[in-house]
Amino acid sequence: MLTPDIHGIIGYTITPFSTDGEQLDLDTLGHSIDRLIDSGIHAIAPLGSTGEGAYLSDYEWDQVCEFSTQHVAKRIPTIVSVSDLTTAKAIRRARFAQDRGADAVMVLPTSYWKLSEAEILAHYQAIGGSIDLPIMVYNNPATSGTDMSPELILRIFNAVENVTMVKESTGDIQRMHRLQQLSEGQVPFFNGCNPMALEAFAAGAKGWCTAAPNLIATLNLELYAAILANDLERARVLFYRQLPLLDFILKGGLPATIKAGLRSTGLDVGNPRLPVSPLSDAASKQLLAMIDA
Amino acid sequence: MLTPDIHGIIGYTITPFSTDGEQLDLDTLGHSIDRLIDSGIHAIAPLGSTGEGAYLSDYEWDQVCEFSTQHVAKRIPTIVSVSDLTTAKAIRRARFAQDRGADAVMVLPTSYWKLSEAEILAHYQAIGGSIDLPIMVYNNPATSGTDMSPELILRIFNAVENVTMVKESTGDIQRMHRLQQLSEGQVPFFNGCNPMALEAFAAGAKGWCTAAPNLIATLNLELYAAILANDLERARVLFYRQLPLLDFILKGGLPATIKAGLRSTGLDVGNPRLPVSPLSDAASKQLLAMIDA
Amino acid sequence: MLTPDIHGIIGYTITPFSTDGEQLDLDTLGHSIDRLIDSGIHAIAPLGSTGEGAYLSDYEWDQVCEFSTQHVAKRIPTIVSVSDLTTAKAIRRARFAQDRGADAVMVLPTSYWKLSEAEILAHYQAIGGSIDLPIMVYNNPATSGTDMSPELILRIFNAVENVTMVKESTGDIQRMHRLQQLSEGQVPFFNGCNPMALEAFAAGAKGWCTAAPNLIATLNLELYAAILANDLERARVLFYRQLPLLDFILKGGLPATIKAGLRSTGLDVGNPRLPVSPLSDAASKQLLAMIDA
Amino acid sequence: MLTPDIHGIIGYTITPFSTDGEQLDLDTLGHSIDRLIDSGIHAIAPLGSTGEGAYLSDYEWDQVCEFSTQHVAKRIPTIVSVSDLTTAKAIRRARFAQDRGADAVMVLPTSYWKLSEAEILAHYQAIGGSIDLPIMVYNNPATSGTDMSPELILRIFNAVENVTMVKESTGDIQRMHRLQQLSEGQVPFFNGCNPMALEAFAAGAKGWCTAAPNLIATLNLELYAAILANDLERARVLFYRQLPLLDFILKGGLPATIKAGLRSTGLDVGNPRLPVSPLSDAASKQLLAMIDA
Repeated sequence: MLTPDIHGIIGYTITPFSTDGEQLDLDTLGHSIDRLIDSGIHAIAPLGSTGEGAYLSDYEWDQVCEFSTQHVAKRIPTIVSVSDLTTAKAIRRARFAQDRGADAVMVLPTSYWKLSEAEILAHYQAIGGSIDLPIMVYNNPATSGTDMSPELILRIFNAVENVTMVKESTGDIQRMHRLQQLSEGQVPFFNGCNPMALEAFAAGAKGWCTAAPNLIATLNLELYAAILANDLERARVLFYRQLPLLDFILKGGLPATIKAGLRSTGLDVGNPRLPVSPLSDAASKQLLAMIDA
Repeated sequence: MLTPDIHGIIGYTITPFSTDGEQLDLDTLGHSIDRLIDSGIHAIAPLGSTGEGAYLSDYEWDQVCEFSTQHVAKRIPTIVSVSDLTTAKAIRRARFAQDRGADAVMVLPTSYWKLSEAEILAHYQAIGGSIDLPIMVYNNPATSGTDMSPELILRIFNAVENVTMVKESTGDIQRMHRLQQLSEGQVPFFNGCNPMALEAFAAGAKGWCTAAPNLIATLNLELYAAILANDLERARVLFYRQLPLLDFILKGGLPATIKAGLRSTGLDVGNPRLPVSPLSDAASKQLLAMIDA
Repeated sequence: MLTPDIHGIIGYTITPFSTDGEQLDLDTLGHSIDRLIDSGIHAIAPLGSTGEGAYLSDYEWDQVCEFSTQHVAKRIPTIVSVSDLTTAKAIRRARFAQDRGADAVMVLPTSYWKLSEAEILAHYQAIGGSIDLPIMVYNNPATSGTDMSPELILRIFNAVENVTMVKESTGDIQRMHRLQQLSEGQVPFFNGCNPMALEAFAAGAKGWCTAAPNLIATLNLELYAAILANDLERARVLFYRQLPLLDFILKGGLPATIKAGLRSTGLDVGNPRLPVSPLSDAASKQLLAMIDA
Repeated sequence: MLTPDIHGIIGYTITPFSTDGEQLDLDTLGHSIDRLIDSGIHAIAPLGSTGEGAYLSDYEWDQVCEFSTQHVAKRIPTIVSVSDLTTAKAIRRARFAQDRGADAVMVLPTSYWKLSEAEILAHYQAIGGSIDLPIMVYNNPATSGTDMSPELILRIFNAVENVTMVKESTGDIQRMHRLQQLSEGQVPFFNGCNPMALEAFAAGAKGWCTAAPNLIATLNLELYAAILANDLERARVLFYRQLPLLDFILKGGLPATIKAGLRSTGLDVGNPRLPVSPLSDAASKQLLAMIDA
């Protein structure tokens, strides 16, 4: 098993629904994927938080997974989020994603009951042992309710052979420092906190997992290019230019804001599923003004 | 619609699984329900946090709901937890519970994306408008990720006609004070934090929603009786007698500890679903010692 | 050394200043002490948080300490707060209080730099070894910045002979449970969180350290009497009757609210020292309405 | 009034004591100041957190202030921390520092009682109106107990003419972003969180206020030079090289660790004042190994 070279700007897809929110709209999903790939991003991540993976039935999830991997068709690497509440269901999803051609999977330790470190490790071991794909460990306590310390993440990294990447979304830069130090630079870490993109790259992040390329791919890509060019001053200017939008989509919730932004720019992808509300008209206008700026 | 007189000790059921964790064991569920009812508790609550409701497939959930309501057979009131991630699915469960004869439903605003107060209110309004049963609003940020202020809870109470009860599980006694004050004593509130049972009753809680009666129903009931008898000294003694066990089951996770305790006392209800691990042998022995004491 | 029987309602004194805030007004301090003692409270506590002990120069502190102990003149026990930032200065204050006739001292581990558990223990040992008075360990992270766990408090209690009482002000009822359990009921604990007075007594608190008797001593005393009479229902009614005022003085800051309340009731004790502002006129009227009710 | 050009590496001084901790050792203070200045740092900051300003008597504080300003003798700008618990005492210190030739003062809103935003603003206005020096607003809730939002800091910046700089020590990079955005880049902000030095510079910090130059000035200065040279890759390498020591001194407490480090490198500056303990021998050896590396 070789880990594909995953780096740079990794774009999350949304999941389009019909107007009443009940049906998947796979045609539009295809358009949104094409827009992302055409923008030049380096990898694509279906069914993540932005993709409302948690709000889909198993049947819908399978459809989106299958369609997405086939539609991407290896143009760029595909990382499918396969998190689920039970280990058994997460394994099922991971195998399904592998069968459909995913290049890697992302796993968040979602939970209802708080998990011990041993339980979390066993969860990753069980998933890791069930597939041959590389796994990106994903830490995001704000959505999962589980906070994994850098020490635990490193234990998982060392204990599970195909765990080869880490996505950190706490927004605490010290977590990245700690991963870097504990692993002596051997753990490739990715940033999942949009308003910390500049500093994560400064600290050595290999990539940025973000829904922002649905709306402002060029700015995201230019920031990464400035980092590659070792041009901090330019990176800083580019970062502050996109920060208002990054703050806005984080604060407003990614499915609601990204879907509103896509609609504003001509691609109607429907609304998020209730209880998540669509963005108000006023906020949508504010967002469009930011995109235009 | 009349709210049944729900008060006192409200016992949560566990959900028994076969040894491999894959099949429901409804026979054993029936036994565990009988044990709870025979112990003298005042109401029963299937499919709550303890019942691993979040870890069941929709098909399993329906089976447990149907079996539980039929097996209780109106011996005592049944309050079914119908929480789900989308409003549509929570409504479906609430209607299903109503059709099967539940006396009330309990709703926790589970979420993946943080919900605004308006989104939470709309969620309760949509569920409330879909059934004729009384609803117990349930606040438990530790499992749901959403913390509802007393002010918001009161708004929901006032805006949704069939929201008639509140369960507070934050463990912050000031929340109960605030509910009592804001509503001038008109909101019946129930305690969901086991190690705060004494003080919640002192503050005026109408009942205690707890999984502890699976193991120590007599102590739970005696505490409530002491409160009804206005005998604080006796209530305090009874509370401290059961507190070590209440602390233990909270800290160890209710499904794991209650299932281990039931096994220790002769009823094998299987293990929790992974990634939640069963209690270790050492901890199970510690628990049994507490039950015996 | 015998610990005096400290229990029940322990009232904090304010420290009156002249109009410009620069001079102590000891005459008025005498009046306020007399009012407290005449109201029937069980012990008195000068120079605590309410008494702005932290805002006094050493010279002023000594004056207030000397005047207070002499003016109380053993009518009821006097517990002097002797907290200071360095161990040396806290010892000096403790000795001074002892020389002037205090019956006990209270020590909060104030800090600028976070202290380790070993540093906190050594602080208490040094103070304990310097005086012959009983010491009340005081935990209040909101003002001191240091949170002592029940386990640490018990270690201090066991290691320092004249530490014989604990005041808990976190407002977390579980801290009191833990002290009670860990010490098998051998640690006398006092409540320092006004809006938790009812529940602290329910949990077994031996007393309530509070500034409220400056304004509503009768209600405070009646609550304690109801607890002694094992009449929970009456205690609950009395508690909810005083809760709005208890919430108000906590939220508004004790020096500002108690001083405003005393002025409203005819005793002008001046303003708190800046940067703490006096209560606004509107808030003072609101407070007076609560006192009258 | 002109603000001196304060930027780059701003080094905190320690305050040396005699062996018994009771006397100031001004001679050694002079040596430690010379070492800092000779190392090439850009400004010097006496009596800050590292300098144990909070643990000194007023008389001692005055001595250290006077000696430090005279000994620096304008070789580099001197920023004196003048924080105190009351507004009156902070003003006294600010005027004293101005009289002795300080180039700027730093003010942390230390508090015992929580301050409202209006009280904090009034505190800065009173100090600002009492001196002609530029003021650096300093936010450090971990030591002061008061957390000022970027919005409040900007209000102070706009309302008080001689507030011209901000030091942010929360370690939350979003605070710096917010200051930058809200002020459209017009507020010069400085970093006070050692392990965030790289990212603060990436985000545009004008300087780094740190005690580290007492031990590793060259590395601190080289990091800043790399930033000025727009060489992010080199800055990153330099940052990770010094990060273990930065983490160590933060975690161990600055007075204890810096004093131990100075002793290890040949300058005996005594111990911190109790209750702060000196670093253990084992930890001191660990620190020396880091300095040597």
